[in-house]
Amino acid sequence: MDLQAVINGSSSNSNGVSKEVFRQTLVKTLQSRLFYIPSFKIYRGVAGLYDYGPPGCAVKSNVLAFWRQHFVLEENMLEVDCPCVTPEVVLKASGHVEKFTDLMVKDEKTGTCYRADHLLKDFCEEKLENGFSLPVEKVTELKHVLAVLDEFSANELGSKIKEYGITAPDTRNSLSDPYPFNLMFQTSIGPSGLNPGYMRPETAQGIFVNFKDLYYYNGSKLPFAAAQIGQAFRNEISPRQGLLRVREFTLAEIEHFIDPDDKSHPKYGDVVDLEFLMFPREEQISGNEAKKLRLGEAVSKGIVNNETLGYFIGRVYLFLTRLGIDKEHLRFRQHLANEMAHYAADCWDAEIECSYGWIECVGIADRSAYDLRAHSDKSGVPLVAHEKFSEPREVEKLVIAPVKKELGLAFKGNQKMVVEALEAMDEKEAIEMKATLESKGEVEFQVCTLGKAVTIKSRMVSISKEKKKEHQRVFTPSVIEPSFGMGRIIYCLFEHSFYMRPSKAGDEQLNVFRFPSLVAPIKCTVFTLIQDQQLEEVAKQISKSLTAAGISHKIDIAGNTIGKKYARTDELGAPFAITVDTTTTVTIRERDSKDQIRVPIEKVVSIVKEVTDGQSTWAGVKTQPHSSTSTKDHGLAKASKLFGAGDSIYIYMIPAKRVLAGVAMFPDLNVAL
Amino acid sequence: MDLQAVINGSSSNSNGVSKEVFRQTLVKTLQSRLFYIPSFKIYRGVAGLYDYGPPGCAVKSNVLAFWRQHFVLEENMLEVDCPCVTPEVVLKASGHVEKFTDLMVKDEKTGTCYRADHLLKDFCEEKLENGFSLPVEKVTELKHVLAVLDEFSANELGSKIKEYGITAPDTRNSLSDPYPFNLMFQTSIGPSGLNPGYMRPETAQGIFVNFKDLYYYNGSKLPFAAAQIGQAFRNEISPRQGLLRVREFTLAEIEHFIDPDDKSHPKYGDVVDLEFLMFPREEQISGNEAKKLRLGEAVSKGIVNNETLGYFIGRVYLFLTRLGIDKEHLRFRQHLANEMAHYAADCWDAEIECSYGWIECVGIADRSAYDLRAHSDKSGVPLVAHEKFSEPREVEKLVIAPVKKELGLAFKGNQKMVVEALEAMDEKEAIEMKATLESKGEVEFQVCTLGKAVTIKSRMVSISKEKKKEHQRVFTPSVIEPSFGMGRIIYCLFEHSFYMRPSKAGDEQLNVFRFPSLVAPIKCTVFTLIQDQQLEEVAKQISKSLTAAGISHKIDIAGNTIGKKYARTDELGAPFAITVDTTTTVTIRERDSKDQIRVPIEKVVSIVKEVTDGQSTWAGVKTQPHSSTSTKDHGLAKASKLFGAGDSIYIYMIPAKRVLAGVAMFPDLNVAL
Repeated sequence: MDLQAVINGSSSNSNGVSKEVFRQTLVKTLQSRLFYIPSFKIYRGVAGLYDYGPPGCAVKSNVLAFWRQHFVLEENMLEVDCPCVTPEVVLKASGHVEKFTDLMVKDEKTGTCYRADHLLKDFCEEKLENGFSLPVEKVTELKHVLAVLDEFSANELGSKIKEYGITAPDTRNSLSDPYPFNLMFQTSIGPSGLNPGYMRPETAQGIFVNFKDLYYYNGSKLPFAAAQIGQAFRNEISPRQGLLRVREFTLAEIEHFIDPDDKSHPKYGDVVDLEFLMFPREEQISGNEAKKLRLGEAVSKGIVNNETLGYFIGRVYLFLTRLGIDKEHLRFRQHLANEMAHYAADCWDAEIECSYGWIECVGIADRSAYDLRAHSDKSGVPLVAHEKFSEPREVEKLVIAPVKKELGLAFKGNQKMVVEALEAMDEKEAIEMKATLESKGEVEFQVCTLGKAVTIKSRMVSISKEKKKEHQRVFTPSVIEPSFGMGRIIYCLFEHSFYMRPSKAGDEQLNVFRFPSLVAPIKCTVFTLIQDQQLEEVAKQISKSLTAAGISHKIDIAGNTIGKKYARTDELGAPFAITVDTTTTVTIRERDSKDQIRVPIEKVVSIVKEVTDGQSTWAGVKTQPHSSTSTKDHGLAKASKLFGAGDSIYIYMIPAKRVLAGVAMFPDLNVAL
Repeated sequence: MDLQAVINGSSSNSNGVSKEVFRQTLVKTLQSRLFYIPSFKIYRGVAGLYDYGPPGCAVKSNVLAFWRQHFVLEENMLEVDCPCVTPEVVLKASGHVEKFTDLMVKDEKTGTCYRADHLLKDFCEEKLENGFSLPVEKVTELKHVLAVLDEFSANELGSKIKEYGITAPDTRNSLSDPYPFNLMFQTSIGPSGLNPGYMRPETAQGIFVNFKDLYYYNGSKLPFAAAQIGQAFRNEISPRQGLLRVREFTLAEIEHFIDPDDKSHPKYGDVVDLEFLMFPREEQISGNEAKKLRLGEAVSKGIVNNETLGYFIGRVYLFLTRLGIDKEHLRFRQHLANEMAHYAADCWDAEIECSYGWIECVGIADRSAYDLRAHSDKSGVPLVAHEKFSEPREVEKLVIAPVKKELGLAFKGNQKMVVEALEAMDEKEAIEMKATLESKGEVEFQVCTLGKAVTIKSRMVSISKEKKKEHQRVFTPSVIEPSFGMGRIIYCLFEHSFYMRPSKAGDEQLNVFRFPSLVAPIKCTVFTLIQDQQLEEVAKQISKSLTAAGISHKIDIAGNTIGKKYARTDELGAPFAITVDTTTTVTIRERDSKDQIRVPIEKVVSIVKEVTDGQSTWAGVKTQPHSSTSTKDHGLAKASKLFGAGDSIYIYMIPAKRVLAGVAMFPDLNVAL
C-alpha cells in the first residue's frame, strides 16, 4: 500500500479511513525512527514546533544541498544570510506589521483562542459528512462556504459563525467576534525596551533591503537572482496538520530581479518542452481539473505571464521530481485574481497532493516592483536599476520651476516648505496644476509639511515640458520570487516515498521509504550475517572506507536476524544494504526490488558510490561482471582526478607484472601513473 | 603586511595604530566586497546584526560543510535540528532564565543602557593609556581591576564605578547601580499571551531534552554524540567588536554522552601526538605564557581531565588549522577554577589571536551530568543510561522503610508528608539519621513540605543496608560539549587570511585573502585577456564545465585590464584565475605565488578540480607536462567511478587509433571501457 493506492481508491467508501490509516502508519514510523518528533517532548511539547532527528535532519540537509546545487550554483545566484531578528521599520515597510494576520475568535469564558476560518470549515465539513438528510440547498450552501472561506472578511466570518450557532469546540461556550491576530513573534531589541522587533516571517525582506549592494556586486547588471535559506516564524493561532503547519520552518527563497520591459530568460529553452499538470485560473473557474500542458505552450498562449516565470516553474518541477515527488501528484495551480496581491502580475503554486489534500509547497510569483518600491519609499534610499543607452535618447521631461522670489513674497518663512512641496509633485499632479493655472490663474495646493493648503498663482511656478537628452533609463526592477517551504516539501516527500509490503512470512506489514539516493538519510547499511569477529572486522573496514568516500551509512553488527536488519534499514529508506557473509565477498541488496548481487569486498565501496552518486543505475550494476578480481583497479578514481570529464578515452587495466612490457610496447606514451 | 606582522610588531610604539589600520583595511575590504555588511543598512542598521553577502555566505557554508564532514560524518554523530523558539520551562530547567544575564547600568537621566563591566574596562584602559604620570600603585590597581573584572559581582562593579566617578559616556550624567539584564530575546508563544518563550541562547538544550530518544536510537549504547548546527540569540546590551559580539549567530554544538566511569575514547590514539599551544590553569596563575605541549602528555599528566576531552581538543585543533587558522595564533586555554561552573569537571577554550586580542571561539567542556540531571528533575522523565551486567552483581543497597502506623499516630494528617520526606533522603542523610537514631534514639528532621522540623524516633523508621542482586547499573551520563561560535571563527579566519601587497607598479597596496580552497568562496575566476567574442565563447564554455563539475566560480568578461581583474579576484580570495587568451590553451594563475601555467583548454577544469579538491598541490600541478594534448583523457573521471580508491594500478592512455592493436597485445585483459 502506498499513497497512490490510497488516493486512487478515493471513490470507495473506505477512502476516508484508509487515508487516515496510511497517515497514522506513516507518522508512527517517522516518529519512532526519529525522522521528526514533537519538540520539547519531555515537557509535553509545544504545538507547531518539531525537531528533526538524525534521519530527518539528514534528509533535510540533502534536500537543502540539492536546492543549493540546482538553483544557486547552477544559476550563479547571489546567496545571502541575514538574521531572523528584524526591526519593526522593515516589516512596517513590507506590510507585515499591518497585514500579516489571521482572524481569531476567543472562547468568551475561558479565553481560549481559535482560528475563525478553521471553526467554520470544521463545522461545514462535519455537517456535510454526517448530514445524510440535509436538503440539497443546504449542501450547496455549505459547499459554497467551503469554497470561498479563504476570502471572507472578519464580518462575513463572524456573521456565518453566528448564523450557524458555532461555539467553542472544547467548552461549547459562545465565541467573540473575529478579530485580526498578528502572526509574527514579537520581541524587543536591546535592553531599553524601546525598539520592537520581530522574528522574520519570511527570508525575502533581507534580500530586498540589500538590493542596492547586490546590484552593484553583480556589476550593476540585470537580471540577477539572490537567494537565501533560513528559518522563518509564524505564531500560528492553533497549529495542526503536523509538519504542514508549524510555528518555525525553513524557507528557501529566490528573488530574481529583472527589467520589467524584458522578462525573457536566456535558459528558457531548457524547460520549454517539459510537460506536467497545470491548473490555470480559467480551468479552476470552469470547474475543470488540472491538465497536462507543455510549458512552452502555456507561456506562448499567455497562460503563464512571461518567460522568466515559466522558466522558474519548469525548474521547480525538475527540482521536486528529482527529489522523489511523484509527478502524478504534483500540479502547478495559478492564483485566482482575488487570491493575488493587487501588485502581483501572476502567481503559481506548486501543490503536492498528500493525505491532507493538495498542499501549497512552493509559491512562484511575479511581484512586479512592489517590494523594492516599498523599501525605497520608507527608507529614502532609491532601490533602482540603470540601463545605459548606447547613444543618448531624446525624451520629453516635465520641469517644475518654482519662482522663489514670488513665493518668498507670498509665503515668507514658509517659502522653503512650499518650494519643496511643488518640486515633489509627481507628473500627474504637475500637469493638473499646469492646466488649472492656465485656465483659472490660481490653484489650491496642499502642503503637507505646513498641514494646510495655500493658493498658488501662475507667476509663482513655471511648469513646462522640455526635450532632454538622456544617457540612461532609471527604473525599479520587477521581482520574480520562487519561495520554497522546505518542511512541507519534506513531509510530502515522506508521504510519496512511503509504502508497506508484506514480510517474507506474510505475517506482518513492513514499512519502506523509497527515497532516491539523492535524499536518502543514509546511502547504505553494513551488516554481518552472523555474529562473528572476523566478519565484524570486515564490516568495520568497509564502514571506514565508506566514511573516507563520503558515503553516509550505518553499521549494524548486533545479533538480530538478517530479515529484521533489512526491515530496519528499509524503514530508514537506505537504498542499499551490504551484508558481510564471507571475508572475501559480500552481498549488496537493493531496497525496493530486494535483488542482491555478490561482489568482491574491494569493489563494494566503489559500486555503492557509483549507484548512489547517480553515475550508474542498479540495473546497470547488476549486469556488470563484479566477481572478477583479476585486475586491481582502486587507484583509478584517484588518478582520474587529474583529468577532465566528457571525452571518450580507452583505458586498459594491466596487472603490474606486465607493465614493463606494456611501456615498451607504446614508446610514444606520455602519461603513466 | 598581514596580522602576523602586525602582532609581532607589538613591541614597537606604533603597534596600537597599525593594528587599527590593519583592521580598518580588512573591514573595509570585507564590507565593500559584501563578505558581510550591517543588516538593514538602508534603515541605518541595528547594532549587533550582520548579513553575510555572497562571498561571506559561501565561506560560511563551506566552513559548516567541513564541520559536518569533520565531526558529524567522521564520528557518526546523530545530527538533530530543533527550533529556535523555546518555551520558558526548558530554559528555567537549564538555568538560563535565572542566570543568563549581564550587569547593566542606566544613564539616570536619559535611560540609555550600558554594560557595567565595559564602562569600567574602558575607564581603566584609558587611564592606563593616557596616564603617563600615574603613581605605580595606581597602575597596579587598574591592572588588577582589568584582570579580575569578569568575576566582579553587581555590588563590586557598582562600588568601583562610584569610586572612580564613572559617568555615562554620551552625556556625563550619573549612572544607576548595576543590575542584571537577561540576555535572551523574549517572546510569547501562541495567541493567548500566557506562554512565554525565548529565542534559544544555545542549541545544546534541544539535544539534552531529546537524550532519551537519541540514546534509544543509538541502540541504548554509550558513548555517542549528538550534534546541532543552528541559530542562537543573545540580546547584547551594547554590541561592539563587529562580528565578534553579535545578537544572532550560528552555533555548532556537540554533546558527547559518556559513562562517567569510563572517559576513554577509542580514537584517542589518532590525536595523541599532536603538539600545539596550550595554556593550562597553572601557567596562567604563575603568570607564564602558553606553551607547546604534546596532547598525549597533557592528558597523561592530568592537565587535561580525560581522554575524551583530550580527543576533542585535538579534533578542534585539526578543524581550525585545516580551515586556515594560523597555529601560531591559536591556543587552548584552560578555565581557571573560578571561571568554571561548579559542576564542570574541566573546560578548555580554543582561543584565536586577532587584532582584538585572544578571542574565545570554541569552548570544550566536560559538563559532567549537570544538564541531563536538571532536565530529569524538572520534567520528571529520567534521562539515564543503563549498563547491563553480563551476570547479576550483588550490591549493598540502603533501604528506608518508614513505619506508617507509628508516623500516623505521631503526625496524624501530616503523616504523608513526613513519609515522603523520609523516603526522599539521599544516602548520606539516611546514614546520618541512622547513626543519630542509634546513638540518641531520636533526631530532628526538616520536612520542607511542612515548612518545619519534626522529631523522628527510632521506632518510626527503619534504615538498613540490604544486599540485592542487580542486573544492571543505571546512571546519568556525563557530557563533553565542544561548542563552536561559527561567526567568530569565520571573522578570525578573515584576519588570519588577509594581507596586503604592493601592486606591480608599486603605486598601491592590493588586498588578498589567502583562503585555502576548502573555504574560499569561489574556487576560481574565468577571464578573457581582451574583449573578443571568440575568447568570450571559450570562457563561457569553461564556465559551463566548471558548473557541471561543481566548482564554484565567477566569470568576468568585462573590459578591465587583466591586472585589475587579478586584483579583484585576489580580494575575494579565489585561489585560481583562468585567463582565456587563445582558443586552444589558457593560463591558470595561482593567487599567492602569482605563478602561471599554460594548459590546454580541455584540461583546465580537471586541473582546477584536482588542486581545489586537495587531490594535488599547485607545486605538483606545475611540474606536470600539461601542454601535451596528444592523449585524450576526459572519459577517465567518469570511467573511474566504477572502481574503488586506494590500490595501486597502472593506467595507460592510448590514442584511439592504437586501440585495436592494444587489445590484441593483451589477450587476457578483462576490463575495457
